[in-house]
Amino acid sequence: MAPAQKVRPTDAGRLVVRCPDRPGIVAAISGLMAEVGANITDSQQHSSDPSGGTFTLRLEFVLAGLAARREELEGRLRGLAGEWQLTWRLVEASHRPTVAVFVSLTDHVLQELVYRVRAGDLRADIVAVVSNHPDLEPVAAAAGIPFHLVPVTAGTKAEAEARALEIIGDVDLVVLARYMQIVSPEFCARFPERLINIHHSFLPAFVGANPYRAAHDRGVKLIGATAHYVTAELDAGPIIEQEVARVDHRATVEDMRRVGRYVERQVLAQAVTWHVEDRVIVEGPRTIVFA
Amino acid sequence: MAPAQKVRPTDAGRLVVRCPDRPGIVAAISGLMAEVGANITDSQQHSSDPSGGTFTLRLEFVLAGLAARREELEGRLRGLAGEWQLTWRLVEASHRPTVAVFVSLTDHVLQELVYRVRAGDLRADIVAVVSNHPDLEPVAAAAGIPFHLVPVTAGTKAEAEARALEIIGDVDLVVLARYMQIVSPEFCARFPERLINIHHSFLPAFVGANPYRAAHDRGVKLIGATAHYVTAELDAGPIIEQEVARVDHRATVEDMRRVGRYVERQVLAQAVTWHVEDRVIVEGPRTIVFA
Amino acid sequence: MAPAQKVRPTDAGRLVVRCPDRPGIVAAISGLMAEVGANITDSQQHSSDPSGGTFTLRLEFVLAGLAARREELEGRLRGLAGEWQLTWRLVEASHRPTVAVFVSLTDHVLQELVYRVRAGDLRADIVAVVSNHPDLEPVAAAAGIPFHLVPVTAGTKAEAEARALEIIGDVDLVVLARYMQIVSPEFCARFPERLINIHHSFLPAFVGANPYRAAHDRGVKLIGATAHYVTAELDAGPIIEQEVARVDHRATVEDMRRVGRYVERQVLAQAVTWHVEDRVIVEGPRTIVFA
Amino acid sequence: MAPAQKVRPTDAGRLVVRCPDRPGIVAAISGLMAEVGANITDSQQHSSDPSGGTFTLRLEFVLAGLAARREELEGRLRGLAGEWQLTWRLVEASHRPTVAVFVSLTDHVLQELVYRVRAGDLRADIVAVVSNHPDLEPVAAAAGIPFHLVPVTAGTKAEAEARALEIIGDVDLVVLARYMQIVSPEFCARFPERLINIHHSFLPAFVGANPYRAAHDRGVKLIGATAHYVTAELDAGPIIEQEVARVDHRATVEDMRRVGRYVERQVLAQAVTWHVEDRVIVEGPRTIVFA
Repeated sequence: MAPAQKVRPTDAGRLVVRCPDRPGIVAAISGLMAEVGANITDSQQHSSDPSGGTFTLRLEFVLAGLAARREELEGRLRGLAGEWQLTWRLVEASHRPTVAVFVSLTDHVLQELVYRVRAGDLRADIVAVVSNHPDLEPVAAAAGIPFHLVPVTAGTKAEAEARALEIIGDVDLVVLARYMQIVSPEFCARFPERLINIHHSFLPAFVGANPYRAAHDRGVKLIGATAHYVTAELDAGPIIEQEVARVDHRATVEDMRRVGRYVERQVLAQAVTWHVEDRVIVEGPRTIVFA
Repeated sequence: MAPAQKVRPTDAGRLVVRCPDRPGIVAAISGLMAEVGANITDSQQHSSDPSGGTFTLRLEFVLAGLAARREELEGRLRGLAGEWQLTWRLVEASHRPTVAVFVSLTDHVLQELVYRVRAGDLRADIVAVVSNHPDLEPVAAAAGIPFHLVPVTAGTKAEAEARALEIIGDVDLVVLARYMQIVSPEFCARFPERLINIHHSFLPAFVGANPYRAAHDRGVKLIGATAHYVTAELDAGPIIEQEVARVDHRATVEDMRRVGRYVERQVLAQAVTWHVEDRVIVEGPRTIVFA
Repeated sequence: MAPAQKVRPTDAGRLVVRCPDRPGIVAAISGLMAEVGANITDSQQHSSDPSGGTFTLRLEFVLAGLAARREELEGRLRGLAGEWQLTWRLVEASHRPTVAVFVSLTDHVLQELVYRVRAGDLRADIVAVVSNHPDLEPVAAAAGIPFHLVPVTAGTKAEAEARALEIIGDVDLVVLARYMQIVSPEFCARFPERLINIHHSFLPAFVGANPYRAAHDRGVKLIGATAHYVTAELDAGPIIEQEVARVDHRATVEDMRRVGRYVERQVLAQAVTWHVEDRVIVEGPRTIVFA
Repeated sequence: MAPAQKVRPTDAGRLVVRCPDRPGIVAAISGLMAEVGANITDSQQHSSDPSGGTFTLRLEFVLAGLAARREELEGRLRGLAGEWQLTWRLVEASHRPTVAVFVSLTDHVLQELVYRVRAGDLRADIVAVVSNHPDLEPVAAAAGIPFHLVPVTAGTKAEAEARALEIIGDVDLVVLARYMQIVSPEFCARFPERLINIHHSFLPAFVGANPYRAAHDRGVKLIGATAHYVTAELDAGPIIEQEVARVDHRATVEDMRRVGRYVERQVLAQAVTWHVEDRVIVEGPRTIVFA
């Protein structure tokens, strides 16, 4: 949660910096920010390993006239980049990323995303709903979001993905909201660290299809859900968020599905919210989450 | 939790009954209890499938002079057994089961069991601590429990188990409290549904050795622990209880071990408590837990 | 959670029985059910005090042709009523109670109830939305529920309640879903144990107005929500369900409101679901919840 | 959780800095740390209000030869103090604070503290157990901690506190671990922000004596525990940590006490651990916790 800011929304910015860990990096970055007159309102950092690892810093700051001064700030960062081997991401907090949501038959995750956007808790714009089934067209329509039916069969997968790509264009983020199709490695590669899936189990348990059936058969006492970035390997991408709910011996597979819906929607919405606030940084097979 | 009972402890009993599910079974059992004058203070039941499955009933009751009337009660149950294909377990609540605890190097689970017995929360007697390492002898000694060092090497496993069996005799329950040895199928067979292990992961994720390392490498956001009955197949027996704790990107493997200790001790102690109160019934690969 | 039932929905019933606690009551009721041929699929009971308290029993059962045989079942219960001082509630599970929802400005709880009804998780029909503000008319309209604007001022409260009562008629349940008006004792008396409110704190902490402000000022580390039956005394009725969420020092009052919304909707929806499934029994200042 | 450090334990330090919030403060402090060659391994900051509030920064750092260079570091901080109105606390991580624990009759919290010290999870030394009852002498003895019996009656409270103060001397932290006496404002004043109590309710609900009885009578569905700094006003000091556990209608007052013990020990141990790691900063009626 960000602190209350009595500031003009357009003056608020975020900076995420990564570089090899060396003493002095915090002073270098915070000195730069002080020089341009930015007030750092939140700061979180992580060292993968203090001796020789990667240093990651996320700042929230306020800088009067940010948009106009962005180029100057970028220039100064470029000035440091060589010495410190910096990479960075500078974002105006008022920018609203665009999101395409892929669904199939169940609407609970889509409904939750729509609700959170409307409530102002998720600062993004859902610009397209893509589905391989027509069922959720009314849900998209009620939310005023264009709905695109793109059927997929074993033989038409490549074409279908091509069509979906054409529809969503250069969207900032793609969310698979219980989309019951495996996307191709090529599709994944188009959205590196910008493609989020909700898997309805506590990964790495119950990879693949029908995880509630598998959970029931194993007799687990907690069911879970996992939001993760999608990579070419099924259900193996970096995990952003997980949560569980308690079940007991009375729970049928159908009961688990019902209970699980509420976990899934919470986990995915949280992950997407953190992503669009630039709180999630992929580090190899894991994520750093500056919650 | 049992309700408050202003009754003589020796009058309190438990009855667990199982049979094929048929209408009338509750009336038959409760009628029998009414005839002998027992007051049913708690009742929980479960039908694995109302049409053709197994019916399980757990009663807590109060019967004046239970010990003296036990034979009469068993006789009446035998009278129903043929018609209803009943099996049952009748327990005087004042009976304290005996428990043998197997440990290796870490004491947190053993300490918790000892604490709960002393606090009166776990109504059982730990009669032996068996270990393949000498390290925890002082912990057992401080608790006044005999400690038995039974070293195990690859070549001496069978002998070691034989010696352990000799030591623990016909104990009611065996608890593997972070015992870092795989027990043989023969050993398991000696304690059917009476051998409980704590595995330091959220099963079925991270079966086998070093689950915190595996959890760290996978980048999970929750770590877990699982208490289960031990069967011949490693980490695959019926699950009694599971719990998780949140970790973030800062957590090293060592941090996970530290956080996990508190989850493990809670999960195992809960499972053992439920077991000794006859709240856990194995049903194929799963358990019914009348918590 | 009820077990899976391969039964005709109209054959499923629920029976809640209350009487002074005496040995034999379970046998009497289950015997009656066996005689009429009902199969008990779930049973939960509670003794407020085994010696002299109140006994409460909730049964789920299957009886072929339940509607047609209801009168017979009621007759038999009347036959037992004198001897055992029974009161009971017999419900056909296929019956869908009617619900009126009162709101003011925030839609999150109403949205959740609408979602759960549509998803089939809450088996009730919302027949009216009543509000003292026009803002949520579109939400009701989108859900196809009649919306009734009933403004309330200090001087018109009695009239406003009269009008609201006229609108909702003899609805089965009234839910105050963040309705920012205190209802009169007379209104409460019209819906005894059928009027549920969500209070946005962990009661009894922070009774009254602006609980998130009060929680922030006290520096609590968890915020909560409480669903309770409404009685004449403000925020003091029997609690049905409570839940909390973690906050930290960064949370402003506004952040608490935002986080709290997701707790409130979950807690109220759970309480309403339990209520309409006849799982909640009021016992003096407390509730029994057969979850 | 601190990151893994392949550093000499004596080189690890912590710095907590507070000052009025102004742009440039992070640069000033991190610049100072860079100049002396300290590597910042963790950093957390909080602004009570970005425009005109208090800025708080907690750093973990590694500085070769910290003990020898401490004076230099303090000197540089003094150099900044005037310009920025700084106050600070500089701690060598290898320093183990001393703790006095006050108890009465129940041992669960003391046992937990003892366990965590021994396990290495709580880096402090319990140097005295003070009690108004003799019962827990064996627990202290088993842990090798001096036990001091200081009886308290209505008439001898002042003397008793004087004697306790004499015994504990200038200990770093005093912990009231279910000590069933109200300490005087004078005693509190001796340990400002260094006196922690565990209250067995979710404050501010159920202030004062017998909170489980009060919780039971109110019919709450969650019971809680609160660790807080003690101030002159009973149960009103800044809250450090809170947690809850679920109870249901079956729970008697005694059951709540039993369940609550496990919450209390967890909450207090967590609060004490954070305190001794300089993660807790009092800010008026609230705390900042850099967990």
